[in-house]
Amino acid sequence: MQPHSLQFDNHGQLRHLLSIEGLSANHIFAILDKAEQFFTPAGDIIQTTDLHGKTLANLFFEASTRTRSTFELAAKRLSASVLNLNISHSSTAKGESLRDTVRNLQAMQCQLFVVRHSASGASHFVAEHINPRGVVINAGDGCHAHPTQALLDMYTIRKHRGDFKKLSIAIIGDILHSRVARSQIHALKALQAGEIRVIGPKTLLPKEIKSFGVEVFHNLAEGLKNVDIIMMLRLQTERMQNGLIPAGNAYYRQYGLTSESLQLANPNALIIHPGPINRGVEIQSDIADSPNAVILDQVTNGIAVRMAVMSLLMENNKRA
Amino acid sequence: MQPHSLQFDNHGQLRHLLSIEGLSANHIFAILDKAEQFFTPAGDIIQTTDLHGKTLANLFFEASTRTRSTFELAAKRLSASVLNLNISHSSTAKGESLRDTVRNLQAMQCQLFVVRHSASGASHFVAEHINPRGVVINAGDGCHAHPTQALLDMYTIRKHRGDFKKLSIAIIGDILHSRVARSQIHALKALQAGEIRVIGPKTLLPKEIKSFGVEVFHNLAEGLKNVDIIMMLRLQTERMQNGLIPAGNAYYRQYGLTSESLQLANPNALIIHPGPINRGVEIQSDIADSPNAVILDQVTNGIAVRMAVMSLLMENNKRA
Amino acid sequence: MQPHSLQFDNHGQLRHLLSIEGLSANHIFAILDKAEQFFTPAGDIIQTTDLHGKTLANLFFEASTRTRSTFELAAKRLSASVLNLNISHSSTAKGESLRDTVRNLQAMQCQLFVVRHSASGASHFVAEHINPRGVVINAGDGCHAHPTQALLDMYTIRKHRGDFKKLSIAIIGDILHSRVARSQIHALKALQAGEIRVIGPKTLLPKEIKSFGVEVFHNLAEGLKNVDIIMMLRLQTERMQNGLIPAGNAYYRQYGLTSESLQLANPNALIIHPGPINRGVEIQSDIADSPNAVILDQVTNGIAVRMAVMSLLMENNKRA
Repeated sequence: MQPHSLQFDNHGQLRHLLSIEGLSANHIFAILDKAEQFFTPAGDIIQTTDLHGKTLANLFFEASTRTRSTFELAAKRLSASVLNLNISHSSTAKGESLRDTVRNLQAMQCQLFVVRHSASGASHFVAEHINPRGVVINAGDGCHAHPTQALLDMYTIRKHRGDFKKLSIAIIGDILHSRVARSQIHALKALQAGEIRVIGPKTLLPKEIKSFGVEVFHNLAEGLKNVDIIMMLRLQTERMQNGLIPAGNAYYRQYGLTSESLQLANPNALIIHPGPINRGVEIQSDIADSPNAVILDQVTNGIAVRMAVMSLLMENNKRA
Repeated sequence: MQPHSLQFDNHGQLRHLLSIEGLSANHIFAILDKAEQFFTPAGDIIQTTDLHGKTLANLFFEASTRTRSTFELAAKRLSASVLNLNISHSSTAKGESLRDTVRNLQAMQCQLFVVRHSASGASHFVAEHINPRGVVINAGDGCHAHPTQALLDMYTIRKHRGDFKKLSIAIIGDILHSRVARSQIHALKALQAGEIRVIGPKTLLPKEIKSFGVEVFHNLAEGLKNVDIIMMLRLQTERMQNGLIPAGNAYYRQYGLTSESLQLANPNALIIHPGPINRGVEIQSDIADSPNAVILDQVTNGIAVRMAVMSLLMENNKRA
Repeated sequence: MQPHSLQFDNHGQLRHLLSIEGLSANHIFAILDKAEQFFTPAGDIIQTTDLHGKTLANLFFEASTRTRSTFELAAKRLSASVLNLNISHSSTAKGESLRDTVRNLQAMQCQLFVVRHSASGASHFVAEHINPRGVVINAGDGCHAHPTQALLDMYTIRKHRGDFKKLSIAIIGDILHSRVARSQIHALKALQAGEIRVIGPKTLLPKEIKSFGVEVFHNLAEGLKNVDIIMMLRLQTERMQNGLIPAGNAYYRQYGLTSESLQLANPNALIIHPGPINRGVEIQSDIADSPNAVILDQVTNGIAVRMAVMSLLMENNKRA
């Protein structure tokens, strides 16, 4: 079995959303196009009945009120019921017990499973063992993937700046511990972004970074020169081993997005950030609130994109 | 800016409900009249679609299952979605972080914010920083205000006893630590209640009590003489400094509502209490269950009043 | 008052579901027949509006995510609202305080109360003190009863094997601590099952077991001979006093359902288990997944049976 082939059915349609890896531009655009349909002309999100009578189970092995809430709100906008299950951190990510839990929830008539886990591959495990009636969405697994975050970023970039092929894009910060960054790079590759740069200290870049097909910069000034899109990351200090945590505001001085460093990018460079932002840690506070920073717009797009993923996966499942 | 002017729009309409202070009799009666429309002739509460497609965020910085539940149930009766967020007590009541949380929830398409916090002014802070699409309801902040409780009390008094101008009303107990009492006094003043008395030990009355425009009694027998409405308060021992907590049943002997003390009030004096009651601590058990005690009716009225507040605020917001 | 008469109205209709004890075959079949109506031809459960505008309160004094979820999902399939209340273990099962809590929830317009408690009789207490507008469902109280579990077992047996009068049925395991077993025996008696056997070590059978009108076996091989239905129980080690917990895999060797022990039963013996199963503790893993084990089907039937109980109780309440 090809890696990630688990997420496609025999016709190449998306069956689960586990990772951006393996998705074609068509797969991604289908989701973004679907998401667009959920907006009113005024930019609000509509209430639909697409998933009336369906139930989403939020299987969270790692607490994340924010991410759980976005899936819960997206599901409710589609008129689905939501069952929130906070499963203790100690529960194994794999094995009989998780398989039995999922099969039981399916028997209780849950159809959508949103899985969040600190271990890479947890959502793959669920997708492998779920019966064919269920669909799985990865809401973040370890340092591996966070596909809906990357999709909402792509939605936001397309909405504000259009054609990916013409864009120079920089991802800044802690790539090593970021499931977001990996998913973003896969998405930008699939969409044939003009140029993809990563900027960060050596200690916060994965060793195999060159194999990602991106340009690597350790100097912020160099990396930001002439970029159109600035993709910030959070410092994931909770995932860092002790030696790696930058001391004091050393990180901010070298890699923080400030008025000064911003001058090197294109004048209208779009600033995106997965949130929640750490003001004064990775980004200057007033820059986070400036017109080119579309951080709150991303949040709204995230609801629409998650609605689109749920809706499309359930349609594909019905057709299969 | 006038104190509390934050809660009105340019046309003097209610924009948020933060405090009873500043509300006119018209504001209050509009809410009570609206609440009346949510009852069936048999006294049940109807299911409406007034807030279909809207989402309420219950922002509780202080645990209160009871209060949270009343807002949750009221919102669901209006067909709104509800997102419950229990935010750790340590979170700050003010500052960037709370502002960012609220703005993020708005971006997630939450429109109504119910805020409960142990610090006075938390809901004001939220109202100050929310974008104009959102409305804020104070569900209790420190010792400051609990406006929906006072409104449901007014609803209950009007329903059972009619014209406020003819009524002599006594508030008994721990005024010092009671956000309820402050909101009640403001409401009764706005409605021009005939006479407002407060009864309690010196240690449980605020120093500035005279400035409230109420008659003060330290003796229960004197205070209850000829009153029409008895408004009980809970002993808020969790808010009292050690020296203030009355020893043994000293409080009950002096200020408890008993068959004996009740004989001094008017024969049909209405007894109301914000609940949950402490039987044998501030009220004799069988008096709490007597026909003149309308404590459970208050609870039902509380659902209707909260529905009215949510519904009116959203209407005003749409018009603005 | 007759024991359990509390759960019937003056016309002998079910008013609350507290226990299987006292239910006639007609009562039970009415529930099973109603449950059947909630299935599509394909075996899925439909979405109905039977309880639109009604609210269920999940009063859980004992944590049980699984049981709570089944009631929550069943209620939502009927379009009821659900209020989950996890009440601390220390709260008393009886007394003023619980009575006040229930009356308050009724005043908040909750109509259905699902009660789970570690103490026997807690749901009876609630039913005794609830006002006539409310209905109570016992979701497990101590070692006493778990009626919806027994009903879903009956549904499953009837669906797969038909007429109870022709069936030889064995209940295996820890009868002493099992609220499920007591409810099952009452149900099978009411339905006039052909033969009821219990199999277990002396230490895990109640002393008064003979009075239950069942055949008792201490030897698994003897007990399983020619049975049509095998009803497994979980080892309730959390309810056992220290001396009673079987050491090592002694229990499995003597009472575990294995390929070997299964050969003594009828070739098509149906295997049911209340879940969650302990693989390798009371049942061999691959037997739990074999075609004759209908453990997941039971879970689905449990949703339909709980919908039926809620729906019938609310109908009876309306008519009364």
